Amino acid sequence: MYASLQNVRYLLHEVHNAESLAQYPHFADYHRETIDMMIQAAKDLADTEMYPYFVEMDHYGVHYENGTIRVHPQLRNIIRKGAEGGWVGATALHEHGGMQMPELIFNAATHFFHAANNGVVGYITLTTGASRLITNFCAQHLIDTYIPKMYSGEWQGTMALTEPQAGSSLSDIKTGAKPTDQPGVYHISGQKIYISAGDHNCTENVVHLLLARIEGAPAGTKGISLFVVPKLKPAADGNLSPNNVTTAGNYGKIGQKTYTTTHLMFGEQGICEGYLVGEPNKGLTYMFQMMNEARIGVGLTAVSTATAAYYASLKYANERPQGRRLNEKDMSLPPTLIINHPDVRRMLFFQKAVVESSLSLIFECAKLQDLSHVATGEAQERAHLLLEILIPVCKTYPSEYGCQAISAGLQTLGGAGYCYDFPLQQYYRDARIMPIYEGTTGIQSLDLLGRKVTMQNGTAAKVYLETVTATIQEATRHETLAPYAQRLETALTELQGVTGHLLGIAKEGDQERFLSDATLFMEYFSLITMGWQWLKMALVSENALSGTSGDEHLFHKSKIHTMRYYFHYELPKTQGLATRLLETTYLTLPGEEELLM
Amino acid sequence: MYASLQNVRYLLHEVHNAESLAQYPHFADYHRETIDMMIQAAKDLADTEMYPYFVEMDHYGVHYENGTIRVHPQLRNIIRKGAEGGWVGATALHEHGGMQMPELIFNAATHFFHAANNGVVGYITLTTGASRLITNFCAQHLIDTYIPKMYSGEWQGTMALTEPQAGSSLSDIKTGAKPTDQPGVYHISGQKIYISAGDHNCTENVVHLLLARIEGAPAGTKGISLFVVPKLKPAADGNLSPNNVTTAGNYGKIGQKTYTTTHLMFGEQGICEGYLVGEPNKGLTYMFQMMNEARIGVGLTAVSTATAAYYASLKYANERPQGRRLNEKDMSLPPTLIINHPDVRRMLFFQKAVVESSLSLIFECAKLQDLSHVATGEAQERAHLLLEILIPVCKTYPSEYGCQAISAGLQTLGGAGYCYDFPLQQYYRDARIMPIYEGTTGIQSLDLLGRKVTMQNGTAAKVYLETVTATIQEATRHETLAPYAQRLETALTELQGVTGHLLGIAKEGDQERFLSDATLFMEYFSLITMGWQWLKMALVSENALSGTSGDEHLFHKSKIHTMRYYFHYELPKTQGLATRLLETTYLTLPGEEELLM
Repeated sequence: MYASLQNVRYLLHEVHNAESLAQYPHFADYHRETIDMMIQAAKDLADTEMYPYFVEMDHYGVHYENGTIRVHPQLRNIIRKGAEGGWVGATALHEHGGMQMPELIFNAATHFFHAANNGVVGYITLTTGASRLITNFCAQHLIDTYIPKMYSGEWQGTMALTEPQAGSSLSDIKTGAKPTDQPGVYHISGQKIYISAGDHNCTENVVHLLLARIEGAPAGTKGISLFVVPKLKPAADGNLSPNNVTTAGNYGKIGQKTYTTTHLMFGEQGICEGYLVGEPNKGLTYMFQMMNEARIGVGLTAVSTATAAYYASLKYANERPQGRRLNEKDMSLPPTLIINHPDVRRMLFFQKAVVESSLSLIFECAKLQDLSHVATGEAQERAHLLLEILIPVCKTYPSEYGCQAISAGLQTLGGAGYCYDFPLQQYYRDARIMPIYEGTTGIQSLDLLGRKVTMQNGTAAKVYLETVTATIQEATRHETLAPYAQRLETALTELQGVTGHLLGIAKEGDQERFLSDATLFMEYFSLITMGWQWLKMALVSENALSGTSGDEHLFHKSKIHTMRYYFHYELPKTQGLATRLLETTYLTLPGEEELLM
Repeated sequence: MYASLQNVRYLLHEVHNAESLAQYPHFADYHRETIDMMIQAAKDLADTEMYPYFVEMDHYGVHYENGTIRVHPQLRNIIRKGAEGGWVGATALHEHGGMQMPELIFNAATHFFHAANNGVVGYITLTTGASRLITNFCAQHLIDTYIPKMYSGEWQGTMALTEPQAGSSLSDIKTGAKPTDQPGVYHISGQKIYISAGDHNCTENVVHLLLARIEGAPAGTKGISLFVVPKLKPAADGNLSPNNVTTAGNYGKIGQKTYTTTHLMFGEQGICEGYLVGEPNKGLTYMFQMMNEARIGVGLTAVSTATAAYYASLKYANERPQGRRLNEKDMSLPPTLIINHPDVRRMLFFQKAVVESSLSLIFECAKLQDLSHVATGEAQERAHLLLEILIPVCKTYPSEYGCQAISAGLQTLGGAGYCYDFPLQQYYRDARIMPIYEGTTGIQSLDLLGRKVTMQNGTAAKVYLETVTATIQEATRHETLAPYAQRLETALTELQGVTGHLLGIAKEGDQERFLSDATLFMEYFSLITMGWQWLKMALVSENALSGTSGDEHLFHKSKIHTMRYYFHYELPKTQGLATRLLETTYLTLPGEEELLM
């Protein structure tokens, strides 16, 4: 087992009430049976086409030779069958050939893909993202040319942002776009690095959604435009001809080895055409409209990878005999299973606590995203604000704590966890990129504290507090949950004190001081947020205890027990963080002397 | 730079007063010039023979084919030149051909080896360990046969402990030893796994120090004996003949890829002779006499690997321009170096705080080990007791926090850190085995709380408290250090409360409850211990500030600044841990229902 259908259904239906979205005409098709059918279809695809190749594709890797890239042949099946299942255009409008699937359902479904084989899913979801930019902002002839080929999995989509000299600093992008006589057609020149799925031999063509600067455009972020740049140019008759997009190499990585990470050159060997998306100089605006999906997507990849690692560790702990119970005096007895050692159980509960709350938060955010699209009035506004403040958290906590959880899983296996005979080492390697993808933890933390906490004079923060408080109030009415509601309330009160302290520093106008410990604030805020998710789950499970029996009953008891674990072992980490965040001794600002040596 | 000669000299001479060991006749040779010469010699060897091959040997890996193992040819030079430098027998007695080097100097010297190329050093130090067991406990004819070949690097030594069914539980060892007509000669049969340096093509022979059970021996740990088992049997004329030690495979690992990890079969294809070490059934006693060195050794490998990672990250941060300072309004200015971003500085200070205090603790323990050998009376007893309580910490903190520090270093490089073009990913992979080698973190934690804190009615704990308190008292007399001395004193007082609480549970007789959070206690105790090391260093540097200038002055300021960082960012982590450790809600004990699902 690499992911739990029972847990996904529980989160969808019991915790996040997925069916409630069907009240909106846009999502009217998504009743419970449809939802369950889609989830099952995704799981089946993951079971048959993805999971069996997880280890093999890692060993196979990516091969760059003479300007071409060869990947494991199974990737062709994965892309085609993913497309046939409708997953490329799943969330797109009916009018564009999509399924108008709620993000909530899409994330729940693709959780199985990521958990089964985290390095292949981007080949599908990048095409989703690229095609959405085309459908939303391009002229009809571009839509007609590109979208059917992308939805069918024949053409790969990418996001071509990063450049060697710019890295995370998109304002420093240099790739050039020179206008031609044809409106909307530009000549592109420059290079891009770290382009995921940037080239490979399992699709006929690759379509880059590329950021570049039109000749004479303003400096900085206000002069960046977005272009469609195909590897091969489609002619009216459907023939494809080279567009001078050269693959200069593939970056070797320690994980996600089946996922190409290319270095691309545009227009080095001749004219490379690019087609403007929307209006000039609005490239970053368009791209940032995709950012929330992309960040939820990385959080989902991280939690799904950590989920698969959890089940792999749990299986090992349930099968491996070693040592005796600590109270056992009789050493002649056979060894006990290692799941009976408290330290192993602690590590497993840590994994479970991290992955199940992370998945719940991802679902929370996906549903908020749906509501911020389809709801109206105050409900829409509140969904939007809550989503904005949670987005950096739902990217970062699953990524950072996901790595820690996988490391704990590896530790449970001991030496075996470090060796290729078991998958823990692969999850460990694969997951380490997640705190870097789509804005590093440092950048997410600046976003959380520097933008989201302060946005609209703290309105997003206010909605967050009200929402968490509502859960606390509900939990307070249950005798067994009240002590935990109390703990979360204390933490939430303290959070307000810490935030107020930091905003006081912000008012002094020194951004560097204000934001110097933003990453600590991120962890602090995240720990409280996951406490909220655990309390939400425990509420559902507490209510379900009396009406269930057998496995289902145990499932709910396991949830409540893990909530308690979280509050006893994880939430206390806020104490040290609050202590530090309330201090005003600045030790990480650059000074006159270089003290790092 | 992968390690700092300046820092090693500072720790040796200014913090730990290495020369003071020369007052003991056993170490009379080790005056400052000799010490500095040995350190320089080690660094030269690391610079020329080890560091240049670090990446190449990782790529080359280990190749198992038809019962033989091929490694990178440079390993032959490393082993031979290491032996020529005297490093195999460095700490051995003069009468055995050794250099009688203090462990303190040996650890300081080999720090450069580990930092340069962590996966090759075990080929030398395992031979050191194996040869020490032979010289200490074997008959003269075995010493005469094996030791010269081992000290010369012609023969490899190993420790053959682990078996598939036993893992960390040595009492479950099954490998058998059958007496023969010849006294001291046994026939060995069984298999061993995860044997580091267990076979390779760079030495003429391999000598296993192997744990096995003599026919009819008592069950459990009291029936385990130690044997010398050569791969090839040396005849009186020096000829070597096969001894039926078969190499069944090499475990593929994610790191330390140049270090063989073999699966060995003994006596499967014919008679395999083993020669009893010392007396029957005392194998574990002999082996455990090596345990302190071995655990310091793993701590040293961990901190050295993390040290190299620190300097690699620091170099990158000092060279890579990206983004603008947070207070910078003018985006047309060129990008700043990333070392000027507070979050990057925070990560670098974290690395520095971890690696420099870890190295200091390793030196502390190595010196205590020396004193526990050569000192007399109360001084000897106190050194022994303090060493016993610190050993699990000096293995675990550098391993666990070393991994975290390297991960922070990888994060500083962003995407580049995850790719093979930079060494951070290799350090990240290499280091992950350290919390597993030589007793996992869980096992070290049981040792700390279950054995060392309680040993001799808490006498070791008392010596620890007195020693840390002495540092606090000294620091209190310095105006700039007093606030930090105060923080450590508060933490130390709290530690006594937490320990008292836990010992109360121990008295109730339930070991499982008492030890269920031993790993949290380990982190808690370690954080305080590293605060002590930082205060020790800050005291030295505070005193040195007025008499130094230029680089040296800055070196001391950097130490004091990093101490402050440690107390503001790391020590507060004790708060949440103390909160948990003082609770009596047990959530990780196995119960009637399996709540992990």
